[in-house]
Amino acid sequence: MTAMNAANPMTGMTGSPGAIGTQPIEYAAATPEVRAVYDDIMATRRTDWVNNYWKVLANHPPTLRRMWDTVKQVMGPGALDPLTKELIYIAVSVTNGCRYCIASHGAAARAKGLTPEQHAELVAIVGLANETNRHAVALDLQIDPQFR
Amino acid sequence: MTAMNAANPMTGMTGSPGAIGTQPIEYAAATPEVRAVYDDIMATRRTDWVNNYWKVLANHPPTLRRMWDTVKQVMGPGALDPLTKELIYIAVSVTNGCRYCIASHGAAARAKGLTPEQHAELVAIVGLANETNRHAVALDLQIDPQFR
Amino acid sequence: MTAMNAANPMTGMTGSPGAIGTQPIEYAAATPEVRAVYDDIMATRRTDWVNNYWKVLANHPPTLRRMWDTVKQVMGPGALDPLTKELIYIAVSVTNGCRYCIASHGAAARAKGLTPEQHAELVAIVGLANETNRHAVALDLQIDPQFR
Amino acid sequence: MTAMNAANPMTGMTGSPGAIGTQPIEYAAATPEVRAVYDDIMATRRTDWVNNYWKVLANHPPTLRRMWDTVKQVMGPGALDPLTKELIYIAVSVTNGCRYCIASHGAAARAKGLTPEQHAELVAIVGLANETNRHAVALDLQIDPQFR
Amino acid sequence: MTAMNAANPMTGMTGSPGAIGTQPIEYAAATPEVRAVYDDIMATRRTDWVNNYWKVLANHPPTLRRMWDTVKQVMGPGALDPLTKELIYIAVSVTNGCRYCIASHGAAARAKGLTPEQHAELVAIVGLANETNRHAVALDLQIDPQFR
Amino acid sequence: MTAMNAANPMTGMTGSPGAIGTQPIEYAAATPEVRAVYDDIMATRRTDWVNNYWKVLANHPPTLRRMWDTVKQVMGPGALDPLTKELIYIAVSVTNGCRYCIASHGAAARAKGLTPEQHAELVAIVGLANETNRHAVALDLQIDPQFR
Repeated sequence: MTAMNAANPMTGMTGSPGAIGTQPIEYAAATPEVRAVYDDIMATRRTDWVNNYWKVLANHPPTLRRMWDTVKQVMGPGALDPLTKELIYIAVSVTNGCRYCIASHGAAARAKGLTPEQHAELVAIVGLANETNRHAVALDLQIDPQFR
Repeated sequence: MTAMNAANPMTGMTGSPGAIGTQPIEYAAATPEVRAVYDDIMATRRTDWVNNYWKVLANHPPTLRRMWDTVKQVMGPGALDPLTKELIYIAVSVTNGCRYCIASHGAAARAKGLTPEQHAELVAIVGLANETNRHAVALDLQIDPQFR
Repeated sequence: MTAMNAANPMTGMTGSPGAIGTQPIEYAAATPEVRAVYDDIMATRRTDWVNNYWKVLANHPPTLRRMWDTVKQVMGPGALDPLTKELIYIAVSVTNGCRYCIASHGAAARAKGLTPEQHAELVAIVGLANETNRHAVALDLQIDPQFR
Repeated sequence: MTAMNAANPMTGMTGSPGAIGTQPIEYAAATPEVRAVYDDIMATRRTDWVNNYWKVLANHPPTLRRMWDTVKQVMGPGALDPLTKELIYIAVSVTNGCRYCIASHGAAARAKGLTPEQHAELVAIVGLANETNRHAVALDLQIDPQFR
Repeated sequence: MTAMNAANPMTGMTGSPGAIGTQPIEYAAATPEVRAVYDDIMATRRTDWVNNYWKVLANHPPTLRRMWDTVKQVMGPGALDPLTKELIYIAVSVTNGCRYCIASHGAAARAKGLTPEQHAELVAIVGLANETNRHAVALDLQIDPQFR
Repeated sequence: MTAMNAANPMTGMTGSPGAIGTQPIEYAAATPEVRAVYDDIMATRRTDWVNNYWKVLANHPPTLRRMWDTVKQVMGPGALDPLTKELIYIAVSVTNGCRYCIASHGAAARAKGLTPEQHAELVAIVGLANETNRHAVALDLQIDPQFR
């Protein structure tokens, strides 16, 4: 599989396709196109580093660009405050059991002011919702007219 | 299955066990124990009705009591504001595809001030998180040291 | 799509591929091969009818045969008693939100002796497990050495 | 984040909120309130140790108390025997992929008499149910009238 | 909630936020911005109608635009053929139990040549994968070195 | 638990039931029945080794036989080409977060010709489908008549 390990000249991808541990592309090794995205990430987030999500996505530049544009739009300033947006993200990631995302967005939430008490409440709500979601389908609950 | 349809004198349960469409227990037909819980729900929520989740759970009074105590504690006043708590609940319910809970907590969120723009942002975040959760496991992302 | 509605002579399949509402194959319209499976289902279960799961699978006879052989082996007599096997099945189906399976296996459980109290306990456990599963990943619990 | 590492005097929480690896609270370091719950866990389970689920939840004493009360009620003696309750718990935990819960409740099941053959049957049923749950929604099965 | 039913002048959204049954925006009632997206959908797909997914998303034009751009990029011509892309989409939608998406992408797959036999094989694989995924976590399988 | 570690004479199972890390049965230690299955796996796949999925399932020979017969039938030659079958398998495994299956079927896909670009497209589609599945239920989309 040595050919696979070299960067594919057309797509910029490295690493075995589908291999676990697809390699992150570090800034120094990135194409100008990828570096432009990295620069925008760091400028927008006011950090001096890029995390593994972006560095591994960078193996496929169209997806890197699309996902960064999406994250900027969806997680940027809006009608919901930044911390609330992270709490929603963590709620989904916990429900799905995604350790990477829980760690990543947990760190983001802390940076946006999450306190220990708020975190405990978040975890309690996520657990409770996962519980009552199953009660609802087990008992075949009919949606009350007042909810429509 | 006629014996099953009558209320079980010991547990207070009605309806076929495991049947879809297990019957809600209306206030007028409820035991004093169940009515006490209904009264507390209506007083706490300042409403004059009880929804199907509680009325069907009432077939098993220990569970009705436990779940109401839990919901009061977890969804009550705390470090997270009431609307944020509902948004977290909806995020989980959408991820799990629970139509009853989406309707129920959507109504609760609206009553607590949810605007159309906020709702659109919530849905966008829930979709995005479900997407990136899968990217993370497909690409076997390693948790960055900065996140620990 | 009229060609799709006719039975495909080679595979015996009817209905639009992928269409919702793929048609059940009734006994009277079934090939001898399919009827043989239906007969075995009814003999094994001591019933005089076949449910929609089997009648729709019958559109693809190899899958009908394989799934009936599997169900006979996995759900047949063994080290776990028949009711316990149905409770496990319901637990999974509730977790996944499969209404058809909840209804189907709920009926099977009732036929095997499930009482209302047992059903209430089952639903409570399924809800609780879905709750603590999320606590575990949210809090990144490390497996205790005593559990290995 | 040094302030976060110290125990929060108001809530008793330690560790970064949302950090992976939130620290377990050992008995020796626990408040009297938390020790009381630990004592009840050990007395009820007739063990001389407390597992990581409880020790990490202990960072938020209200949740520790609530979850222990819940587990005592839901997993305690009832209409379902203790081993069956653990099998249901494992079925859910396997479906959700929760390694901690599979290990924890696997150990509990073994302590309650689970044999290798029973375990193999449990795993086979959980796999099969996850399979047929998907057949059901893919084929849009209609619930048979006999199941209602 | 009458104010909520009217179109919000700033965001263009109609309907109760979070209400089930959020209303689809028909072409005739759409803003020029939304019509432009509808036109592109119909031109790209060579159809004369727009489905409910787009018409309901149209309540929040930024999301409508983003999702259409995404779908065009991800589901457009590429290294995977169009039918294969739909099969992957259906596999996910069946796993998650999304009836709308199963119907929508099932129709798309048929239009791209899906045969009844191919559909049956797809359903069988999705069921089997959901089964073996649970075997793997239940048995705590270690990843073979040959797979890395 | 030493008795549990020895092979159970009746079932051939080794290892603690339900223990994480149930032991794989190597060829040299396998019964003739199990070796026959291993031989068929290696002959069918033209390999000289058997992976952990089969070696751990071998603790329960009926399940080993059943699953190998199933995999041969479902993943064997058919109306879908071999690579497409693996892509469907990976799509499900990513959605469910099964690391073992992603690694195993990723390797199989590579052996059947998967390129880096195809893999990137697969991951993008799986992410997108998981996103739109949630949009659909959050917005309570009604299935368009054209899809039936």
